[in-house]
Amino acid sequence: MTSIGIVGAGVAGLHLGLQLRAADVPVTLYTDSGPDELASGRLTNTVTHHHPTLERERVLGVHHWDAAEYGYGSHHHVVGRRLLNGRALGGPDPLVFRGDLTDASSAIDHRIYLPRLLADFAERGGRCEVRGVGAGDLESLGERHDLLVVASGRGALAGLFPLRPERSPYDRPQRRLSVALWHGVEPAEPKGVTLSIAPGVGELLELPMYSFSGHVTALLFEIMPGGGLEALWNLRYDDDPRAYERAGLAALAEHFPRTFERVDPASFAVTRPQDVLQGALIPHMRADYACLGNGTYALAAGDVHCVVDPMMGQGANSASYSAWAVGEAILEELGGGGLGFDELFCRRAARRRAEVVEATADWTNLMLGPPPPHLLALLEAMSQHQGLADEFTHNFGHPDRQWAVLATPRRTARYLAAHGLDMADLLA
Amino acid sequence: MTSIGIVGAGVAGLHLGLQLRAADVPVTLYTDSGPDELASGRLTNTVTHHHPTLERERVLGVHHWDAAEYGYGSHHHVVGRRLLNGRALGGPDPLVFRGDLTDASSAIDHRIYLPRLLADFAERGGRCEVRGVGAGDLESLGERHDLLVVASGRGALAGLFPLRPERSPYDRPQRRLSVALWHGVEPAEPKGVTLSIAPGVGELLELPMYSFSGHVTALLFEIMPGGGLEALWNLRYDDDPRAYERAGLAALAEHFPRTFERVDPASFAVTRPQDVLQGALIPHMRADYACLGNGTYALAAGDVHCVVDPMMGQGANSASYSAWAVGEAILEELGGGGLGFDELFCRRAARRRAEVVEATADWTNLMLGPPPPHLLALLEAMSQHQGLADEFTHNFGHPDRQWAVLATPRRTARYLAAHGLDMADLLA
Repeated sequence: MTSIGIVGAGVAGLHLGLQLRAADVPVTLYTDSGPDELASGRLTNTVTHHHPTLERERVLGVHHWDAAEYGYGSHHHVVGRRLLNGRALGGPDPLVFRGDLTDASSAIDHRIYLPRLLADFAERGGRCEVRGVGAGDLESLGERHDLLVVASGRGALAGLFPLRPERSPYDRPQRRLSVALWHGVEPAEPKGVTLSIAPGVGELLELPMYSFSGHVTALLFEIMPGGGLEALWNLRYDDDPRAYERAGLAALAEHFPRTFERVDPASFAVTRPQDVLQGALIPHMRADYACLGNGTYALAAGDVHCVVDPMMGQGANSASYSAWAVGEAILEELGGGGLGFDELFCRRAARRRAEVVEATADWTNLMLGPPPPHLLALLEAMSQHQGLADEFTHNFGHPDRQWAVLATPRRTARYLAAHGLDMADLLA
Repeated sequence: MTSIGIVGAGVAGLHLGLQLRAADVPVTLYTDSGPDELASGRLTNTVTHHHPTLERERVLGVHHWDAAEYGYGSHHHVVGRRLLNGRALGGPDPLVFRGDLTDASSAIDHRIYLPRLLADFAERGGRCEVRGVGAGDLESLGERHDLLVVASGRGALAGLFPLRPERSPYDRPQRRLSVALWHGVEPAEPKGVTLSIAPGVGELLELPMYSFSGHVTALLFEIMPGGGLEALWNLRYDDDPRAYERAGLAALAEHFPRTFERVDPASFAVTRPQDVLQGALIPHMRADYACLGNGTYALAAGDVHCVVDPMMGQGANSASYSAWAVGEAILEELGGGGLGFDELFCRRAARRRAEVVEATADWTNLMLGPPPPHLLALLEAMSQHQGLADEFTHNFGHPDRQWAVLATPRRTARYLAAHGLDMADLLA
């Protein structure tokens, strides 16, 4: 009987494991952290789940946090002027506009979310082994299973999958990341994410999140090296929590006034010491699969396959999408007799997810770099046309559609023209 | 308004052109041979159209030759012994078995077929320009259209698309091809294709075909260099028609007795002098697309993208499939606003068809080489189990499913095991 091994119990590993269990496929999940360890640990991320990801949860019967209650329906955009080369769009004030989601998104702390799904997985007959898996262990795991899905971005496992240089444009982090959960920030109205761009300084993602302290606010500072947020980066929360909090407040006051105006300085504080994460990453992409020494294939999913900057909130969604595509390919192969989980199979699974995963990386990387004119034109256009702002917001759940608009200046120009707008006018 | 240019009026170009016209997309077809020239010209091929290709014709409303009347429903297999390295399967007699198609296939002479579809195309508002198109003309054509689909394998156009070495395993033709339409061969019973393998000598594809002389028999000799069919190869029909016919008869008598026994030597003759084609090709695959100097993209379809040996009768079917996938991608892009027929689009179109086109090439190349044991095992199994023979026959219309069974010995072993057969026993 076909058996699938999954290394990693993040959103990719769990969504895949649950999808396969729903079809009664034997699955063993290997994770280095058990549920208690995960729940009591440090903040892992502040990623939100967009509608397509929530829909997969609904199909799996693991949407335990009704998005109508826990989620939100809007993106508030604040785009500072003089974004690039002195190119100023319109007047001196920032562009401020809102886009509404067609369906709610929702951000549940993964330290709550993942243990609950791990319990669902076990209840549904999934096996889970809590153990560290190093590169040297993969071969012996490969002997137990017909296919290994490696869905753990950590440590040496990634080395199994060669870097794809043509999709790994950076040799250093593009931002330094400082994220924490906070009390004392009044939610935006209507409830939603606030995405603020401070040119030359960095970005702030403010997210309504549900965590151990209830409904809190995640503030993800994306810090440009050499910009005005360096002071925040230079403080380690653990060294001096109060100094970190003061620096956070000062950063909001100086660079992100639209969030600052909703802060109550008296109660503004990190929720718990473990609710802080500071670090950096280099966006990159790796090969989809590798053959282990004994002939078993290992398929990469999630961060081990593609690491994106968190700025566009895509990581967990891309991981879930990617894992789901792999799951569909597995079920299809089993439906056709399960003749082989070999290179032919891996190529098929890889093709199935390629467009969306690549678009996620391409779009995020575009937003990370100095904004090209066609992106500025789209931002300006969205500030004038609600329909465009809503579509851009909706497409946070559809990065392929986002990228279809932004991949080239010509695409953006045509998109704007189809809405009666002239790109040159918008940039004038 | 978006306009598509198609270079080449073979089955790929015409199916795509008709598909786009059915959606009212402006299309211009460029062809170096007008319908009269094509109709009066030399035999182009003897390819059959399998059910999925006929289904596309039905969708397009161009299935003018009812497969129930013009087509056939069976494959007769004759596999000589001592296929490889002295490995003999069973007794001294050839393996003889029959597979029945689920739905009829049909072979209409393309000199009748293509002009009729070209007329359909023109009637439906498609533009056609009869002119030679060289590599130097593509750029100016690219200025007239949003996308060029190059569906002409002839001449210098292929050079635009770099060879893919990893999918082009040969540096010389694997067979010499000598094909003609004949009178004097009684059809097999039930009506069908006869595929005969004469180890070390070559293969014969005998097809019931409809041509200018009515229902005739196409005999495609696949001649292995240095084998017993060299005499036939060394004769040019045009030099001495009677000698060629005598050599054809002798080849049947010596190497293909199952066809020979249905020949009436008195009436055995090539139907018309122009109904003969002798040549050779090197199977290969080229890049899916290229960017012209002015920024317009050119997508390859059909032979210019992938050339397979005619042995498995896949060429026209692969070309139609490939072109149809491109058409679907074009219509999808137009439905999404038609933002760009650029590299992003070309990659999507390429992914859509990759699995089937690659499987077609891989399967055909497997059949061209010395048969590996797992292929011998499947042949033996088919001679014993009607269900397997029927599935193999049906899968001439689904090369991806064929390849899913034959891609590796392990896949074939599992496939046989699922039917209660042991590969080792079959090879014993």
